Amino acid sequence: MDFAPDDRTRELTARARVFLEEHVLPAEEVLDQQLAAAPDEWSVRPIVRDLQSAARDQGLWNLFLPGEEGAGLTNLQYAPVAEVTGWSPRLAPAAFNCAAPDTGNMEVLAQFGSAEQREQWLTPLLRADIRSSFCMTEPDTASSDATNIGTRIRRDGDEYVITGRKWWSTGAMNPDAAIFIVMGKTDPDADRHRQQSMILVPRDTAGVSIVRPLTVFGYDDRDHGGHAEIAFEEVRVPASHLIGEEGSGFAIAQARLGPGRIHHCMRALGMGERALSLIRSRANERHAFGRTLAEQGVIREWAAESRIQLEALRLLVLKTAWLMDTVGNRRAMTEIQAIKIAVPRAVQTIIDRAIQVYGAAGVSSDTPLAELYAGIRSLRIADGPDEVHLSSLGRAELRG
Amino acid sequence: MDFAPDDRTRELTARARVFLEEHVLPAEEVLDQQLAAAPDEWSVRPIVRDLQSAARDQGLWNLFLPGEEGAGLTNLQYAPVAEVTGWSPRLAPAAFNCAAPDTGNMEVLAQFGSAEQREQWLTPLLRADIRSSFCMTEPDTASSDATNIGTRIRRDGDEYVITGRKWWSTGAMNPDAAIFIVMGKTDPDADRHRQQSMILVPRDTAGVSIVRPLTVFGYDDRDHGGHAEIAFEEVRVPASHLIGEEGSGFAIAQARLGPGRIHHCMRALGMGERALSLIRSRANERHAFGRTLAEQGVIREWAAESRIQLEALRLLVLKTAWLMDTVGNRRAMTEIQAIKIAVPRAVQTIIDRAIQVYGAAGVSSDTPLAELYAGIRSLRIADGPDEVHLSSLGRAELRG
Amino acid sequence: MDFAPDDRTRELTARARVFLEEHVLPAEEVLDQQLAAAPDEWSVRPIVRDLQSAARDQGLWNLFLPGEEGAGLTNLQYAPVAEVTGWSPRLAPAAFNCAAPDTGNMEVLAQFGSAEQREQWLTPLLRADIRSSFCMTEPDTASSDATNIGTRIRRDGDEYVITGRKWWSTGAMNPDAAIFIVMGKTDPDADRHRQQSMILVPRDTAGVSIVRPLTVFGYDDRDHGGHAEIAFEEVRVPASHLIGEEGSGFAIAQARLGPGRIHHCMRALGMGERALSLIRSRANERHAFGRTLAEQGVIREWAAESRIQLEALRLLVLKTAWLMDTVGNRRAMTEIQAIKIAVPRAVQTIIDRAIQVYGAAGVSSDTPLAELYAGIRSLRIADGPDEVHLSSLGRAELRG
Amino acid sequence: MDFAPDDRTRELTARARVFLEEHVLPAEEVLDQQLAAAPDEWSVRPIVRDLQSAARDQGLWNLFLPGEEGAGLTNLQYAPVAEVTGWSPRLAPAAFNCAAPDTGNMEVLAQFGSAEQREQWLTPLLRADIRSSFCMTEPDTASSDATNIGTRIRRDGDEYVITGRKWWSTGAMNPDAAIFIVMGKTDPDADRHRQQSMILVPRDTAGVSIVRPLTVFGYDDRDHGGHAEIAFEEVRVPASHLIGEEGSGFAIAQARLGPGRIHHCMRALGMGERALSLIRSRANERHAFGRTLAEQGVIREWAAESRIQLEALRLLVLKTAWLMDTVGNRRAMTEIQAIKIAVPRAVQTIIDRAIQVYGAAGVSSDTPLAELYAGIRSLRIADGPDEVHLSSLGRAELRG
Repeated sequence: MDFAPDDRTRELTARARVFLEEHVLPAEEVLDQQLAAAPDEWSVRPIVRDLQSAARDQGLWNLFLPGEEGAGLTNLQYAPVAEVTGWSPRLAPAAFNCAAPDTGNMEVLAQFGSAEQREQWLTPLLRADIRSSFCMTEPDTASSDATNIGTRIRRDGDEYVITGRKWWSTGAMNPDAAIFIVMGKTDPDADRHRQQSMILVPRDTAGVSIVRPLTVFGYDDRDHGGHAEIAFEEVRVPASHLIGEEGSGFAIAQARLGPGRIHHCMRALGMGERALSLIRSRANERHAFGRTLAEQGVIREWAAESRIQLEALRLLVLKTAWLMDTVGNRRAMTEIQAIKIAVPRAVQTIIDRAIQVYGAAGVSSDTPLAELYAGIRSLRIADGPDEVHLSSLGRAELRG
Repeated sequence: MDFAPDDRTRELTARARVFLEEHVLPAEEVLDQQLAAAPDEWSVRPIVRDLQSAARDQGLWNLFLPGEEGAGLTNLQYAPVAEVTGWSPRLAPAAFNCAAPDTGNMEVLAQFGSAEQREQWLTPLLRADIRSSFCMTEPDTASSDATNIGTRIRRDGDEYVITGRKWWSTGAMNPDAAIFIVMGKTDPDADRHRQQSMILVPRDTAGVSIVRPLTVFGYDDRDHGGHAEIAFEEVRVPASHLIGEEGSGFAIAQARLGPGRIHHCMRALGMGERALSLIRSRANERHAFGRTLAEQGVIREWAAESRIQLEALRLLVLKTAWLMDTVGNRRAMTEIQAIKIAVPRAVQTIIDRAIQVYGAAGVSSDTPLAELYAGIRSLRIADGPDEVHLSSLGRAELRG
Repeated sequence: MDFAPDDRTRELTARARVFLEEHVLPAEEVLDQQLAAAPDEWSVRPIVRDLQSAARDQGLWNLFLPGEEGAGLTNLQYAPVAEVTGWSPRLAPAAFNCAAPDTGNMEVLAQFGSAEQREQWLTPLLRADIRSSFCMTEPDTASSDATNIGTRIRRDGDEYVITGRKWWSTGAMNPDAAIFIVMGKTDPDADRHRQQSMILVPRDTAGVSIVRPLTVFGYDDRDHGGHAEIAFEEVRVPASHLIGEEGSGFAIAQARLGPGRIHHCMRALGMGERALSLIRSRANERHAFGRTLAEQGVIREWAAESRIQLEALRLLVLKTAWLMDTVGNRRAMTEIQAIKIAVPRAVQTIIDRAIQVYGAAGVSSDTPLAELYAGIRSLRIADGPDEVHLSSLGRAELRG
Repeated sequence: MDFAPDDRTRELTARARVFLEEHVLPAEEVLDQQLAAAPDEWSVRPIVRDLQSAARDQGLWNLFLPGEEGAGLTNLQYAPVAEVTGWSPRLAPAAFNCAAPDTGNMEVLAQFGSAEQREQWLTPLLRADIRSSFCMTEPDTASSDATNIGTRIRRDGDEYVITGRKWWSTGAMNPDAAIFIVMGKTDPDADRHRQQSMILVPRDTAGVSIVRPLTVFGYDDRDHGGHAEIAFEEVRVPASHLIGEEGSGFAIAQARLGPGRIHHCMRALGMGERALSLIRSRANERHAFGRTLAEQGVIREWAAESRIQLEALRLLVLKTAWLMDTVGNRRAMTEIQAIKIAVPRAVQTIIDRAIQVYGAAGVSSDTPLAELYAGIRSLRIADGPDEVHLSSLGRAELRG
């Protein structure tokens, strides 16, 4: 249980931190301007391309991906770098080519993709030449129960035919999102966890139609490709587009979720740190009733509580990363569930406190807080609501 | 301490309820379409005009305003009607001409305006021919401390000259918002609470410029005129535009705040009831793991907690209304502060639960929940953050 | 929905308040001394007898009991008087002959007892000549599920024979507790809610043995007769000792619970008010780091939160009382459950805050706080844990 | 940041765990019997002596003490052993001679005592031949502010003369507590933190009088010597009894507090684990409404939340221990404050949940829960209330 950062981690984190301060944070305003200048545009903005180019030059690239195709970091090594990117979730993860859902999709391709699939899709994704989307969640069903999935993937000769409707396909509004990984049922009569398969569907395949963009509290998340509702109507792809074998969809999804969840938690810690740092600035600069905010009211207590939460939960995230590295994702499941529940919730509280400290500025776009809030609030729902995980974790705990 | 609704209240509430079900709730989708159809338009949408016309015909009009110019209801009589409008805060208050900030502005004019001011501005407001805005909050100062106000109102012969910058002027993006009530200092050297005055500034006066719209969690609140940042640069108006006398601004603001706060709380209860009703629908309709949501997890506990909170806080709101009616707003100050703190916080929790129950649909525009959340969250900041009120209420309590 | 106290209520409450200040609060120290002087004694202490005599002289007697045998107050009339007694739960309820479990037992006898039963047991209870106990809860079963009851009541000729084990029979350690009302099953095969009956068992009946006293957080509650575990082994009583008819036990229990719960909540509000008043004293008297506690930290916020909770919940209790008076206990069930859950929980929080304000003195016997805490904490368990009520209330709410 | 237990720690913890299961837990009932058999006795009970003898034989002795006089463990090594003792706080710490306040007193003597002082008092304490008390807190002053201390230590020739009143001198009711470490002011005019000194006062010195025992939620904590109020009236001891030099009292107190706080937190984790393990047993064994508790209601959520809290906070405690070992207590101050606030609060919540799960048995002496609760609740007050630490930690955080 050694969480101490090794030299490489220390060096990478420092470099990422400098990059954040020097390039990313100043670029936030530029992004706002570029977004405002082209309000109907969904593709990656020029400033993101600029940052990507600079980050790649500095070796801050594909850090999320273990193995030879990526930076080869362990989860424990990646954690503090990922936390740095959480300070600016609209820009930093994309700048480092470490943004969801591309990360998870690249992991799936790296781990389960055929040589052909890897060459065709993983390679350009690793270069950020294209973006991707993950089509799992469906309207009108509780997606935390995988047997609810309505999309069908039917074998027809050398092809698979996909029919169904997905939503919350993050990034899919971006025309550069060239490839979709779609989850559906190949065999509704198989065992509960062998009914599902995953298949690659190029964006421009006939029968694929983007129905509409979705919003998260008022935000369309246009900067990273938004969230789409997509209809798949008798969409035909070559049989070679199936990932792994028929029936392996649930297992692949599970494999994808573990890293996805811990990455979210790592970034969330950075979001919490940024909110706390904003509390600090405001507390020292703002005056009311003749004193700074820091000298009155409950702001000291809020800062203390926030610090305690971040310290304790960061350790739990690091332990989880260490477990995933040493005993594997499956045996780290309890810890993954624990951080999936605890981290977003705590960070939501911290951001909410920061909003309250900033007052009206906190809910507006003059601070990053409201958008951070929308992002972290969604994490309590994404990949299954907290309650499903709490109940599952509790059941395991009561079994002893 | 008799909160029982009298016959008139019972009848009005029932009528409002029917109007809500038959006209307002079905109109929500129409509003969405009209908003989408003219994305750059800030004025009142046709559907609102239609609803206003229908509501006026049914006597559901200006119910918030006591005295002869309004419906003449007491706070206790108005409360349950206002709660009904909270079910659809984008449409119902406007439909009944009971929407902030017009309500508060009309109250100010009715109570403190000269005959000329009333004729010129109150009359068209009561007919909903024009809209208005209230310009109090300023960027860069903690507005909960009235001595922080930076806007200056200088007497110059027969005119007043106004210079300053305001933001969160709700409704001011709407070109129909013809009149602004502006708070500023006429005498920065007077006693703490005699420095401020209020003055009427027609929108088209030279020197008034709308700087930009502000957003709340990504929402621009375009349907009711949004929130503007406004610059006043050497703006000249006739001296007769001053409301009341020089130095009375703080007192007028206080008089305006009491009813404003209780109206917000009444509507908030309706928002909470709607969220709870949405929880109820979802719990019974949605299935996961083979059972309805109502049959598993913590949703029953959430529904129970929500019901208890709404019941207890409704009674506190009614008592506050009754106190305002019987002993006056000033002597109801503790109760007004109490509901200002407790109601939005509780309703925020209830809406947050509902979002969690709806999952991804809850944060999107497919349910009214995320926008309700943004609205209720802002109430914890508007008119002074909760913390200022908590501290003030606590100080009074400790004095005994 | 008129909760205004009428003249009689106002007068009685004022009288009770004076009695509390002049007689009861000063007697708390005397009680401590009398308890310390006879540490093995379980009977009513002389100071309680003195207070009872004084209270009876002032007409502060049997106020809980509606109808001719009691003071004839409605629940709404009794509520504020009961709240006064909550300020000193060890002494005031007993002083006014309004202490549980005698109150509930007297209600049962008044409502369901035969003329003979009433004469033999109700009359001396109304005079406080004897005390009583209610034997319902059993060790080793979840008593919130009435079908779990293990005690058997078997008809044998002109007698009933009772066998079983009870605990948490409050008051039963007191040798003056002359009569026990025992719940048991007369017909385990009947319908779920017709299996149970209640029967009167005089303390000195053969086969009754007091097994041991139980403690609540270290307190033996010796002042009001403690809590006993009792074994009933082939205990024979005349058939005329059955209350009501066979199978009516569950219904009688339900009838008893409603008033019992609201009485607990009324007193709990008084406990909360006392804790808040102790916070107030301490905040103004105690100095640390050069200022009073009232001038620093979070104590103002705690006082404000406590005040808000007490105000809102008092109204909910009053509404519940009013409903019980006007539409009956059964139709007030939702509200009774709501206050049963919400009031003790809130008051527990308030007392916990007060303990924290007092520091070490707060957990010791130098303030009444720790013992108040033990009492209120137990209310979250008594008559079914909060969770059972939350779940039931939530189910009803979700049914709509 | 390596928290992995080394071989010695692993082995010691395993041995302690076996000792707990085989000797300590079964002895809890014996202790109850021995306490009941001699209700007026304050000294160490025979069962404790038996356990001490067995523990010493197994090398489970003085594990808290670093350096040659103790077991020489680091904080990180001691942590998991201390956690084991928290499962049975009445017996296990005493059995291992690791019980407060003796631990802190031995640390003070080992670190600051003269050779003579060590020989006379440390040696028998290390053998558990005598017990000791720490006399710091005073009635009527806020002890978290050290300048409030009223006790005076006056030099008079070769002696010091001590006058003052202390309370919450834990262990001092035990006649075997042969030595008291007393904090008082030698120079009230010195700098704020140089006014205080510590001095050794043998129990039998003239002028020392035990005023009374204090209770914690009704418990007299008789098993470990209770808590005494003590009067010191012109008590004379040789000048050589001063610990360190005049004016060093505050520094010694600070040195004593760091380890004291972390030890409390380590044990608190064990208390939390025991409560959670009791929840587990009950959830699986108890039936209501036809199912086990584990299958219904919110108990799964409670178990999950408890597990998450324990995991996160254990890591924070281990990090704190590691920091104390590597950078020193002073530079670990933020973390020490953090765990001092967070751990007892979380464990209190867990124990409260367990009480609720057990119902009436939970507040009685039939489970260890109520007494565990009283103990953990007191920790939120001991060594300064949470609020003082929160405010201090928050101030540091806002300074950045």
